[in-house]
Amino acid sequence: MTAETATSGRRRGRRRLAQETDKSGADAAFYHAVRNTLPRAEVLSADELESLHRTSLRVLEELGIRVLNDEARELLAKAGCELRDDMMVHFPSDLVTELVAKAPRSMVWHGGEGLAIEIGPDTLHFGPGAGCPNVTDVERGRRAGSLKEYVDFTQLQQHFDIIPFLGPSIEPQDIPVHERHLITAKVQVENSVKVPWVFARGTGQVLDSFEIIRIARGLSEDEFKQKIWCYTVINTNSPRQIDIPMAQGIIDFARWGQPTVITPFCLSGAMAPITEAGSLTLSHAEAMAGIALAQATNPGAPVLYGAFSSNVNMKSGAPVFGTPEHIRTNLGAGQLARHIGIPWRSATGTAGNAPDVQSAAETQLGLWGAVLAGANVIFHSAGWLEGGLTISYEKFIMDLEVCQTIAQVMKPVEATPEALGFDAIAEVQPGGHFFDARQTMARYSNQFYEPLIRDWSNFGQWEEAGGVQTVEQAQAMWKKTLAEFTPPQLPPDRSEALAAFVERRIREGGAPPID
Amino acid sequence: MTAETATSGRRRGRRRLAQETDKSGADAAFYHAVRNTLPRAEVLSADELESLHRTSLRVLEELGIRVLNDEARELLAKAGCELRDDMMVHFPSDLVTELVAKAPRSMVWHGGEGLAIEIGPDTLHFGPGAGCPNVTDVERGRRAGSLKEYVDFTQLQQHFDIIPFLGPSIEPQDIPVHERHLITAKVQVENSVKVPWVFARGTGQVLDSFEIIRIARGLSEDEFKQKIWCYTVINTNSPRQIDIPMAQGIIDFARWGQPTVITPFCLSGAMAPITEAGSLTLSHAEAMAGIALAQATNPGAPVLYGAFSSNVNMKSGAPVFGTPEHIRTNLGAGQLARHIGIPWRSATGTAGNAPDVQSAAETQLGLWGAVLAGANVIFHSAGWLEGGLTISYEKFIMDLEVCQTIAQVMKPVEATPEALGFDAIAEVQPGGHFFDARQTMARYSNQFYEPLIRDWSNFGQWEEAGGVQTVEQAQAMWKKTLAEFTPPQLPPDRSEALAAFVERRIREGGAPPID
Repeated sequence: MTAETATSGRRRGRRRLAQETDKSGADAAFYHAVRNTLPRAEVLSADELESLHRTSLRVLEELGIRVLNDEARELLAKAGCELRDDMMVHFPSDLVTELVAKAPRSMVWHGGEGLAIEIGPDTLHFGPGAGCPNVTDVERGRRAGSLKEYVDFTQLQQHFDIIPFLGPSIEPQDIPVHERHLITAKVQVENSVKVPWVFARGTGQVLDSFEIIRIARGLSEDEFKQKIWCYTVINTNSPRQIDIPMAQGIIDFARWGQPTVITPFCLSGAMAPITEAGSLTLSHAEAMAGIALAQATNPGAPVLYGAFSSNVNMKSGAPVFGTPEHIRTNLGAGQLARHIGIPWRSATGTAGNAPDVQSAAETQLGLWGAVLAGANVIFHSAGWLEGGLTISYEKFIMDLEVCQTIAQVMKPVEATPEALGFDAIAEVQPGGHFFDARQTMARYSNQFYEPLIRDWSNFGQWEEAGGVQTVEQAQAMWKKTLAEFTPPQLPPDRSEALAAFVERRIREGGAPPID
Repeated sequence: MTAETATSGRRRGRRRLAQETDKSGADAAFYHAVRNTLPRAEVLSADELESLHRTSLRVLEELGIRVLNDEARELLAKAGCELRDDMMVHFPSDLVTELVAKAPRSMVWHGGEGLAIEIGPDTLHFGPGAGCPNVTDVERGRRAGSLKEYVDFTQLQQHFDIIPFLGPSIEPQDIPVHERHLITAKVQVENSVKVPWVFARGTGQVLDSFEIIRIARGLSEDEFKQKIWCYTVINTNSPRQIDIPMAQGIIDFARWGQPTVITPFCLSGAMAPITEAGSLTLSHAEAMAGIALAQATNPGAPVLYGAFSSNVNMKSGAPVFGTPEHIRTNLGAGQLARHIGIPWRSATGTAGNAPDVQSAAETQLGLWGAVLAGANVIFHSAGWLEGGLTISYEKFIMDLEVCQTIAQVMKPVEATPEALGFDAIAEVQPGGHFFDARQTMARYSNQFYEPLIRDWSNFGQWEEAGGVQTVEQAQAMWKKTLAEFTPPQLPPDRSEALAAFVERRIREGGAPPID
């Protein structure tokens, strides 16, 4: 035993300084406004960055993007793009530069009850795991996602302040697709004041969703259009293709002044070149194409630059995350986003199948990569398993602990004369302790981060209490959170209008997704 | 399901591109020479850093350090320190500055078979979990450490290239303390070519250990003294005290030209002020006092600046790790180490009791903190549980995966015209894939990091194979590694001399540790 491990004796029999508290992740004032104070890591020199950017512009101009949506091609042609056979659109480099420059450098997303989330150059926000067809928890196992679980995850996202906006954690497959957008939008605004997600699956669905949010927030159509009240993610069909609903989503959101997060999902070796630089070249080109479409539709429309490049397992072709390649590519993506000056979204993830050490470790590795890359929004920060095919209740909680810790790292270190501690050091004799030093007594109750679920009991206590593993701590927390959940109250008139609208639209047949 | 999760269909039925390989963490040329290419994160402004440094000097001059070792006090008095009652030593600021400046800025540690590890401004090395009285694995549970497990961990440390030097992972409690240094030194040089650790528990033990290493490496006494062949860690008895064996260790190692890693273990709120800055002030003062003693003994003696500051759980007084406070304090420690220009050692850790998500997550959080702090050596990177009271076989492997991933992040991103991928992108049609693109075929076999134990099978395959958790993957790997372990061969004459020396010293009664 070295002295580094010999401190257990000291702590025996000491009186408790602090009472048991459960802050449960609540600190909206801090978590909703985290600034990333860490330095940005870079993997490309200034020359290399410029070369890569130029190569992306060359891809857009010489090779082009296939745009499957007629209106999108028309808008781009009108802006100055060249249309060729087979729905190919070629983007002159100068035009891309000009259009991209119209996108705003920062924006504010609005929720209910005055919630306002700034997204700009140094902001750091953690988005939940999203897009999962399946759901799992340690008690009931893995199954197809349903409305019940969609509601659960909306409530969990509402509860924890580290999550500032909602994500479609689960695809509720028991709701028919033509009604799903209505029900999910309603669930979001009834259970949360956070900024909702809208599916971009055709104009019908999008406008229904906007209407629901407008009713819930008590806004006129004009008020809705003047600020940001929701968002969607646009995934290009890498390589070099934008499909009909995605292009339509860019157009619809741009027209209504709502933000699209334009995110090529470029997996090195699969839908993108196997090299990190090549994957970035393609991703950057596609992102700029989407941004150009938004700006061609409505100059100044809010967009986020999205980059979600990782690699595949070359043995199976399946995507993997939290790899060195994932992290390095992310660092390059951050440089590209800053190069064009647009706030950007990255993502973490895992290919793991269980809420175990691998999936937690991969997710944390990817998170740090995104943080060091200066991502302004990090999606899939909590809950993902199996490359997003499943979301886990327990992993959602376990990952939040890591997100909260990283956010807390951004707090400044106090360096006042009092904090530098000369007087405190003078007060304690050599070999003594600071447990009851004046400085300690003045500060102990809130000096340190209060964890969500970390078990800091010693081995004896831990074993006596049943040897609880992290996943069980997480299980207890999500159950407690849901059991105690109180939804925010909508004014009765809005609540009624909302119910009436959704009922009517379902009676009318809802809106089918477009292909 | 969004497009970000919709790729599973694509991978079905694809032919395998790569054969199953088990690289088992082997890449000495890379892992032994990792340079930290990430930027250093800072939490103190230049003025604050200087204030903190000055406050530490004031602590040394005005408050002093209690030095329990007579010879150490004499050496310090001779160098210019003032001795006062109660074994207190007061260090004039100018003297500290002058002595600290004598320490080398970088050094090379030597092992067997030509192994040479540089430790300098940008190097990044991962040391194993060390100092644990207990050991655990998922099959046999937690028990007191014994020689058998000491041997196991020495072999595991030898096998994985990410570990460049050995650490005393386990205290073999079945070996009497007066023989333990002999047996552990012998086990290290018989099972590993990596740089061994020596216990600093009195001159008798230290010189015995040096002799064993000298015999095993085939060195004259002079050759031994001229290079670095082993190391030890010196923990001050914070606050403001250096005990007899620790001071003796600094003196003995300095005389023989071997490095001490001088590490105050300053826990905010317990053995150090509750503020991060205060904890750093104390830690920095104590580290400089130890470094001053080494330089007063032998100017130019190799030392590492050590900082292992975390906080305690204010509810129990027990140390915790991977907290925001641990990370921020580490960032400050890195600034202080660079301020005085000495290579430095940090550490990660966990207070978790099981090889579960919490302990893995805390360890990774601490690791990133140390990496961003620019630590040149990170101790306790693999295996620790319970704040170092136990080492886990499985966690050792799981943590190594994270260390390897972080090391691999430091590899450069290629940005040649070929890597930028214009030609590869031109080759693949919109909506196609790159699986058999020319660039992919030329690179796939070694483009990506090959993990140790990450299971990247899909859910169906994973479930069919028994739903193996990470900890079981890790178990399989340590068992396989030990089963297949072949120790390096010592020349027969050295082997015999080694056995004879140890036998004789045991016959003579070994060497008791000093208090």
